[in-house]
Amino acid sequence: MKKFSVHEICTHLHGITDGKTSAMVSSAGSPETAQPYQITFLGNKKFERLWPKSKALVAVVDKNSVLDPGPGRALIKVDSVELAMCRVLELFRPVAVRFENNIHHSAVIHKSAEIGSQTKIGAGVYVGAGCILEHNVTIYPNVTVLDGCFIGSGTVIWPGTVIRENCRIGLRTIIHSNAVIGADGFGFVKCPVEGLVKVPHIGNVVIGDDVEIGAAVCIDRAKFASTVIGNSCKIDNLVQIGHNCIVGEHCIIAGNSGLAGSVKLGRGVVIGGGSSIKDHVTIGDGATVGGGSGVISDVCAGDTVLGYPALKATVTLKHWASIKEKK
Amino acid sequence: MKKFSVHEICTHLHGITDGKTSAMVSSAGSPETAQPYQITFLGNKKFERLWPKSKALVAVVDKNSVLDPGPGRALIKVDSVELAMCRVLELFRPVAVRFENNIHHSAVIHKSAEIGSQTKIGAGVYVGAGCILEHNVTIYPNVTVLDGCFIGSGTVIWPGTVIRENCRIGLRTIIHSNAVIGADGFGFVKCPVEGLVKVPHIGNVVIGDDVEIGAAVCIDRAKFASTVIGNSCKIDNLVQIGHNCIVGEHCIIAGNSGLAGSVKLGRGVVIGGGSSIKDHVTIGDGATVGGGSGVISDVCAGDTVLGYPALKATVTLKHWASIKEKK
Amino acid sequence: MKKFSVHEICTHLHGITDGKTSAMVSSAGSPETAQPYQITFLGNKKFERLWPKSKALVAVVDKNSVLDPGPGRALIKVDSVELAMCRVLELFRPVAVRFENNIHHSAVIHKSAEIGSQTKIGAGVYVGAGCILEHNVTIYPNVTVLDGCFIGSGTVIWPGTVIRENCRIGLRTIIHSNAVIGADGFGFVKCPVEGLVKVPHIGNVVIGDDVEIGAAVCIDRAKFASTVIGNSCKIDNLVQIGHNCIVGEHCIIAGNSGLAGSVKLGRGVVIGGGSSIKDHVTIGDGATVGGGSGVISDVCAGDTVLGYPALKATVTLKHWASIKEKK
Repeated sequence: MKKFSVHEICTHLHGITDGKTSAMVSSAGSPETAQPYQITFLGNKKFERLWPKSKALVAVVDKNSVLDPGPGRALIKVDSVELAMCRVLELFRPVAVRFENNIHHSAVIHKSAEIGSQTKIGAGVYVGAGCILEHNVTIYPNVTVLDGCFIGSGTVIWPGTVIRENCRIGLRTIIHSNAVIGADGFGFVKCPVEGLVKVPHIGNVVIGDDVEIGAAVCIDRAKFASTVIGNSCKIDNLVQIGHNCIVGEHCIIAGNSGLAGSVKLGRGVVIGGGSSIKDHVTIGDGATVGGGSGVISDVCAGDTVLGYPALKATVTLKHWASIKEKK
Repeated sequence: MKKFSVHEICTHLHGITDGKTSAMVSSAGSPETAQPYQITFLGNKKFERLWPKSKALVAVVDKNSVLDPGPGRALIKVDSVELAMCRVLELFRPVAVRFENNIHHSAVIHKSAEIGSQTKIGAGVYVGAGCILEHNVTIYPNVTVLDGCFIGSGTVIWPGTVIRENCRIGLRTIIHSNAVIGADGFGFVKCPVEGLVKVPHIGNVVIGDDVEIGAAVCIDRAKFASTVIGNSCKIDNLVQIGHNCIVGEHCIIAGNSGLAGSVKLGRGVVIGGGSSIKDHVTIGDGATVGGGSGVISDVCAGDTVLGYPALKATVTLKHWASIKEKK
Repeated sequence: MKKFSVHEICTHLHGITDGKTSAMVSSAGSPETAQPYQITFLGNKKFERLWPKSKALVAVVDKNSVLDPGPGRALIKVDSVELAMCRVLELFRPVAVRFENNIHHSAVIHKSAEIGSQTKIGAGVYVGAGCILEHNVTIYPNVTVLDGCFIGSGTVIWPGTVIRENCRIGLRTIIHSNAVIGADGFGFVKCPVEGLVKVPHIGNVVIGDDVEIGAAVCIDRAKFASTVIGNSCKIDNLVQIGHNCIVGEHCIIAGNSGLAGSVKLGRGVVIGGGSSIKDHVTIGDGATVGGGSGVISDVCAGDTVLGYPALKATVTLKHWASIKEKK
């Protein structure tokens, strides 16, 4: 188990301590449930009021806080409690796999694949012909990467994920377990004689840098050219992204949502959980789609829409209020 | 193929036979489609009326039934037809994998992992450092269990499932294929300089005893402490459970539903298929959420809610009736 | 990289050329983004107007088109541009896995399984006892096929998919990555003493010929008898099909939809994305369910329904219009 002194953590956070700084911290907890060897985070007055009753050894608070650490405990004052929390949790992150060699002997790596230095490949992984994995990539067990893929430096792919042929993943991206990147798009041509004829999808998926893709997310490859996920996008679990979608940078898509084919999201779009976006719809920069919405027409930049059909949130909320009144 | 006489099945069910008890049964079928070597189940008068035309060899009926078995066929009378059906189907369950050795030679098991007696581990399975698998656990092929997990006695994990580091699974629990237990929660801090900074999730997932988790279900690990699934919960396929959710005992969650972060379900809550629950919502003991609902505020114990936004079912049904009238 | 002359492609399409037919084509692109070595497709007047500004080397157009190829470029005239596109894309499809031997040495195949000629089995695949894989089947890496399954000739199963015991897959069917075929249905009997008792599911899943199943789709096995997917059905990603569903031939089910248990779809039913169908509902031949709908009662053959609850599309669209007016 990892342990750090209050003083060490404070230095790591560029903070200022108040109270007993020699105590050792071995993990983190919420104010209500933290134990006497844990650090907690009090990001606002509401949480600060829990401090006297909390058992936590040390709390991270805003630099302007006037809280008293009390006997035998300590406070660490920082510019941003939330950001400090991220950094502290990172310190205590447990090891997921103790890789004994960089490349496990049971991994199957085609002789033509290029594997960078410090790249780790777990048991049962398949890496196909012509793949390029840059340095410091981590591929957990039982991942499959088919032929011709590129995976950028620092990227992490969790167990069970499948990357189909010729896809490109950027730098420092995280793909969670059992995701499927690059399956064929859903396209068929209705023919009088042959019935539904499959449209071959010979494009690929291109995922940017600093992206996070949730567990069991499916991002389909393009018919031609690429389905694109921009830099810094964050996509939650069980999301479907259809073929030829273009998702701008810094978008956030919450769980169980679906983008049909050729949807375009601008920069910084936020999609609430359980939403569906119709094919070929465009959603402008900075727009927000409320959870559970069904978007069937374009959304202007900066707008907030809600409901099914998705209308301006003010309109939908008024409609919802009218349903409640009638009860 | 397994075969049992009517007499053997009746003894197994603690039932009473009527008719020809020496006949051999080799599988089960519905009243309409059963073949002359099959057993069927007639749990109510409607099903009993199908008996004269059914080809089934034998039927399980209620102990108070006055049905006549007819020539060359038999009835088995029991206290509960539904429970008897479960027991009969269990008799005929086919073998999924013939494990020739308890641990397949291609499984990769860290030397520090502890594996109980009679535990079976299939081909291509990875079990990480420090894992404890109690006795009589079944791990089907191509499952990945990362470091530090605990899996209780009698638990079954179907192919392709991923259990991330430090999660705990109880006794006699079933996890279906390609589920993902313990992926990182979906949390980011918006920072002026750094953009969206990932909140590390160093907690885990704790799943109770006698739980069933469907295929491709995703249950995210907690930021700190645990995401909890209580004893005897039954979760259908493709359900998303966000980080830090607390699901009480005996809850039923139907397919394609999603619980956002920090949702709390009481004991015995039932969630219909395709429903979404907003983050931090609490749903009280014994409450029911109708299928396809969007729950955006707390639900009291025992209430039944429906629709999006989810309102008392009576209110929503009245609203639905008003839409139909306007046609 | 594959290359074909305009003349070769034209012969393959049984078309007529106009312009420079000796030029070499090495891939396909959209009219707007195509490069001077690419072929594009102009299926209607709107697309034809993009031709003068397009950089594409050659375009496929309707046989009645009066477009001018222009200097140094070519047109291929065909009966159906859409069908021709499918055939051209098929020509340029890249290789997904270069199988060096038909059966990878790391695959685990039970000695009692029968494997047809030209069938390819990738690294880390598990094939259980008594399975029959006909000829020319392709099983990509890390797929799991449990005991007693039948997989017909020409079928392709992408990485990470799980086929549970005793399921049957037809001819020329495609199953995308991380799908789960044949997990237990979601059924429990509520007993006063034992609580929720699991209903064993000893039936199977039967999938027809020329079917396509999307990534992370879950199709549950029947309690007894079979969950059935008819010939030529096309199912998109992340769809849930409950136990004992019967899906007729030529149905199309878009992404994120869910069919609860025992739903029956007739022939040629179309289900829009993100829809939910209640258990035991029957939807007649040729009916259409609009995207995002919740179907809670039977739908007649040929009808189009929409909304939640799903009503005739005309009724729902009138209701939607009334919400917009009130703003």
